[in-house]
Amino acid sequence: MSVEPDWIAVDWGTSNLRVWAMSSADTVLAEASSDKGMGGLDKSEFEPALRELIDDWLVKSPLILCCGMVGARQGWAEAGYLSVPCEPLSGTPSKASSELDVRILPGLKQTAPPDVMRGEETQIAGFQALNPGWDGVLCLPGSHTKWVEISAGEIVSFQTFLTGELFASLSEHTVLRHTVVADGVDDEAFASAVSDAIARPERLASGLFALRAAHLLEDLSPKRARARLSGLLIGAELAAARPYWLGRAVAVIGAGGLSRLYTAALAAQGVPAIQADATRMTLAGLTKARNQLRVAS
Amino acid sequence: MSVEPDWIAVDWGTSNLRVWAMSSADTVLAEASSDKGMGGLDKSEFEPALRELIDDWLVKSPLILCCGMVGARQGWAEAGYLSVPCEPLSGTPSKASSELDVRILPGLKQTAPPDVMRGEETQIAGFQALNPGWDGVLCLPGSHTKWVEISAGEIVSFQTFLTGELFASLSEHTVLRHTVVADGVDDEAFASAVSDAIARPERLASGLFALRAAHLLEDLSPKRARARLSGLLIGAELAAARPYWLGRAVAVIGAGGLSRLYTAALAAQGVPAIQADATRMTLAGLTKARNQLRVAS
Repeated sequence: MSVEPDWIAVDWGTSNLRVWAMSSADTVLAEASSDKGMGGLDKSEFEPALRELIDDWLVKSPLILCCGMVGARQGWAEAGYLSVPCEPLSGTPSKASSELDVRILPGLKQTAPPDVMRGEETQIAGFQALNPGWDGVLCLPGSHTKWVEISAGEIVSFQTFLTGELFASLSEHTVLRHTVVADGVDDEAFASAVSDAIARPERLASGLFALRAAHLLEDLSPKRARARLSGLLIGAELAAARPYWLGRAVAVIGAGGLSRLYTAALAAQGVPAIQADATRMTLAGLTKARNQLRVAS
Repeated sequence: MSVEPDWIAVDWGTSNLRVWAMSSADTVLAEASSDKGMGGLDKSEFEPALRELIDDWLVKSPLILCCGMVGARQGWAEAGYLSVPCEPLSGTPSKASSELDVRILPGLKQTAPPDVMRGEETQIAGFQALNPGWDGVLCLPGSHTKWVEISAGEIVSFQTFLTGELFASLSEHTVLRHTVVADGVDDEAFASAVSDAIARPERLASGLFALRAAHLLEDLSPKRARARLSGLLIGAELAAARPYWLGRAVAVIGAGGLSRLYTAALAAQGVPAIQADATRMTLAGLTKARNQLRVAS
């Protein structure tokens, strides 16, 4: 059966490319993905990487609407930044140089302290579309976890933490790689590490080596060590992000395991965060952007 | 001219192997080094890696005295640990299985909180040999920076920080690799980052991403970004190590640039640390261990 979408939704991050064939009623007709994230592509490789996934969907020359790192300076076409405070998706998408009708949504920037996002603004807009009038704080866990303050429909401020990349580089490229190789999470070890780090966040760098030492001297299991590493990093992040979540309504936008860890860590601080699925929010955000273009044209 | 040492001093770390041909009066007759650290060697590769450097020195079948990671479980022969509090080098070296007379000095361990060292104990013993009666705190910067409390000739306690490996993995394996590629250090940027991190050490993970954002939005130069990264990590370490250095006599045992950064960061906290050269301390420590064996035999 042929797929003839009205438009194509594209989430193009650093590591992955995901596409959805969308009907004129904004339902999903088909979807596909690849590991051709912008991080591994030269300028000339974006269009072929996209065509690989959507070539069968181009019968009606659909609009192709993209969010994420594809709009960075090193991406397909630089899409600039909107400045906060602002509503997400209140800017004009940039056109990529292509025979396809490719438009890329701008990111967001903050001047003081300096910060940027690309892709998360679309998830935020999707969350707002599905939760009209919601005021509070959004946490978007990932390689670069974002904490975002929402008020009266606008993104007021945000702050990015390198927690996910810290976890990956520590567990793959330091002496801890011998200590944390494991699947699954030990919930008790995670919770106690979160608690330690929130109480004494400045001890992070010594807490990290202590994992190695406890592995050598006390047979700390890799599964517990991995959970402790995760807990120390997320706990230190929560300590620094306290002005965001303390006494606020919090929603965590993410996927599976990582989202669950953040929700558990917040619950231990007495913050009952609601959870929202990142992919669903991305698609709702791209749909909102699509509808804004319909209204504008 | 042939080199016929009385004994051979060996500093065998994770990344490098250094050897010195020593006279019976403990002077250096010759030296050599290679990048065959224990981290890259299988059990069977240690002897060939050593022979590559010392084969011409074996005329008199000299004692070969080693310190460092060569004595780890994954090293040539496990040399165990002495428990603190203790004098460094107060244990018996282990023999490696070899036709050569290879002895490996044990490391040190601490039970609570769990911690370990291998190689630094020899530098500490060397420092004590050159500074008899010295009481105070030693800082040994490196991949795994050690803070060590010395009292009445004994190592009372110590704490390891993963600061050096954090710097390396962040600058090589995260988004910061685009931001911190530079040589040299911007002293002013380093000092202000140390000050920021000591004041608010819990903000480390957000301070890291802020380097990336400032590079994108404010053209933060790679040289300043690198200095800030270094300053944030060392500042956070100093904040956590405050119980060690506050109001104490401090000596920094290290090499060149990194040692200078720690000394500068301590000076900014009003702590005038003395500096000692790591290689010189290692050699003095191995010499002390050699003399203990002479006395014992």
